[in-house]
Amino acid sequence: MLRTVTLLGATGSIGRSTREVVAENPDRLAISAVVGGKDAAALAKVAIETGARFAALADEGGAAALAEALSGSGIAHGAGRSAVFEAVAMPSDIVVSAISGAAGLEATFAALTPGRVVALANKESLVCAGAAVMARAQEVGVRILPLDSEHNALFQVLGVEPISAIRTMTLTASGGPFRTWSVEEIAAARPEQALAHPNYAMGAKITIDSASMMNKGLELIEACFLFGLRHDQLDVLVHPQQIVHGLVTFRDGSVSAGMAVPDMRVAAAHCLGVDGRLDAPPARFLDLALTAPLAFERPDLARFPALGLAMAALAQGGAMPAILNAANEIAVAAYLAGAISFPGIAALVDAVCSQSAPQMAAPADVAGALAVDQDARKRARALL
Amino acid sequence: MLRTVTLLGATGSIGRSTREVVAENPDRLAISAVVGGKDAAALAKVAIETGARFAALADEGGAAALAEALSGSGIAHGAGRSAVFEAVAMPSDIVVSAISGAAGLEATFAALTPGRVVALANKESLVCAGAAVMARAQEVGVRILPLDSEHNALFQVLGVEPISAIRTMTLTASGGPFRTWSVEEIAAARPEQALAHPNYAMGAKITIDSASMMNKGLELIEACFLFGLRHDQLDVLVHPQQIVHGLVTFRDGSVSAGMAVPDMRVAAAHCLGVDGRLDAPPARFLDLALTAPLAFERPDLARFPALGLAMAALAQGGAMPAILNAANEIAVAAYLAGAISFPGIAALVDAVCSQSAPQMAAPADVAGALAVDQDARKRARALL
Repeated sequence: MLRTVTLLGATGSIGRSTREVVAENPDRLAISAVVGGKDAAALAKVAIETGARFAALADEGGAAALAEALSGSGIAHGAGRSAVFEAVAMPSDIVVSAISGAAGLEATFAALTPGRVVALANKESLVCAGAAVMARAQEVGVRILPLDSEHNALFQVLGVEPISAIRTMTLTASGGPFRTWSVEEIAAARPEQALAHPNYAMGAKITIDSASMMNKGLELIEACFLFGLRHDQLDVLVHPQQIVHGLVTFRDGSVSAGMAVPDMRVAAAHCLGVDGRLDAPPARFLDLALTAPLAFERPDLARFPALGLAMAALAQGGAMPAILNAANEIAVAAYLAGAISFPGIAALVDAVCSQSAPQMAAPADVAGALAVDQDARKRARALL
Repeated sequence: MLRTVTLLGATGSIGRSTREVVAENPDRLAISAVVGGKDAAALAKVAIETGARFAALADEGGAAALAEALSGSGIAHGAGRSAVFEAVAMPSDIVVSAISGAAGLEATFAALTPGRVVALANKESLVCAGAAVMARAQEVGVRILPLDSEHNALFQVLGVEPISAIRTMTLTASGGPFRTWSVEEIAAARPEQALAHPNYAMGAKITIDSASMMNKGLELIEACFLFGLRHDQLDVLVHPQQIVHGLVTFRDGSVSAGMAVPDMRVAAAHCLGVDGRLDAPPARFLDLALTAPLAFERPDLARFPALGLAMAALAQGGAMPAILNAANEIAVAAYLAGAISFPGIAALVDAVCSQSAPQMAAPADVAGALAVDQDARKRARALL
């Protein structure tokens, strides 16, 4: 049976991985709609290549460019917020939610309609509105499958075990480009050094977050909501080989680890194989006999304070994870623009979180999450 | 709710692990009957310590010694084959089947009664009569939980995934004491060297099998029947740290690995936690940050020909795995008695298998399996 896929974030790195997996399985999967951010030409190219019936660009200003790039293709299209919602509302079996930022949060919420599978890569959905998103998914009967390598690995090895069986969940981290750097070296890190991720080619924002380990902190927060754990049941191990992506330690001492080659297509294939596993090409299988020994170490919170800030925000709960996330977005942009140093990222996040009311309730819906987000961004900008 | 446990093989290493886990969980588990082999004093001690209501010794000649050792204890007892069956027939929720050899096969078969969980460590049940045992378990509705570390790990990480989702299953091997030895060094290996297992204290037979890697070959055969795989879906990786016990590689490239500290109590706890995971003491949890890096290598079939013989017997199917197992038992006993060299073990197994009719059907029941076993032992003894 052919399953249809709505691809939100079609031109990004997760979008590319998803498209490749769909292309490898033409008998089982077809992309019906694609949504991109600002690059009309890239979105049009993707729409034509994937045979999508509809293409939506989030940036309303790109409407004319998209129309021109798709002229004669027969592909329906639109631009702006309403076009994104139109794409989400079109019938499909699977929605891949890989738009980053606040736009992705709104679109994910809209995608939670009965009978669907939502493959979730948009961080904001769980970091900023985790309780609301999980409650809504449960209410409408949507299966949320995590598309990040780490969460996907944890989801797979957890299987049907009840949450009460879990002692801890561990997310692994590559350690990023600064894993072995001293505090002084990190303090002087230039953006091009922070952008040199050892294993994955990803967008600039997430690559900087990997270098600061804020990315792992945000993933801890996601995992907490996704699996319904207490904050103190989550931890992080640095694992430079990035073969083990996540580990579930059960109360009886058994540990189940999710592994794969460091290739986003593996997690994408798991999410898309809703009727039964897809077949990967031979080159995508892990051969442990040809892999460097798998090493693990505790993260150094002194050199990577962003991870500690995220853990603290998770422990505090309420709106604090959303505030942390918003402040971090502003801080990373400022670092990439040369306005602050690399340690300045964590310092700004810390300052914004510290001036926030600690008892602020968790956002009850998208609007609430976006309000918290906007307020924290404003305060972060003011502190710059 | 208190679950009762019948412990077959109560005085061996798996029996000890099981007893320790039961003792750690007095509110949830109680041992109701214990079965031992020949050591009446050891069995009596175990029966008294565990508070069992019945003790059976397989060796009929030990009846008087057992009676004396248990006099005044109030524990009912018996000796000989019928006493073992009496113990198995007593009501209990969980039967731990850890008697080695042919006696264990008969007892396991008898334990397959409706509503029970059978935690299986007796190799012969699956190696010699795998098809018959699995068919019987299915027929009467018994859950078989594997108690070996490797199979237990595979069982846990497989979860509810269908067999069709699996590409391969990998069992790990420590590599044993001869992992880094040359062919010439192995050829001259004395029994006390072969008995020096790097990680586990076990009986002599299984320790020699670990040194030759025949143990891993027998485990491959067990896994094939337990999970219902094709023989070419199973492989072995040498992993000296013995932290990863088994890996399931799915068709889409995801790999789920079962890990734990090398301690048989972890698998025992999983099997005994039928109503929900038991809590292990803190010292039994894996800390990967304190563990040596996890290394994997392919087994060297030139230095460890026994593993290749087992793989060939599995590929041939029918009665060949039972023949291989019987020949190996005789060969290991001869090696321990100083009658043959270490490479003589594999040579004898090869000779017995080679002279066997390749098309001999798989045993349909216990009697058939025992007949194949006896015939192969006779031929092995004749070849010595």
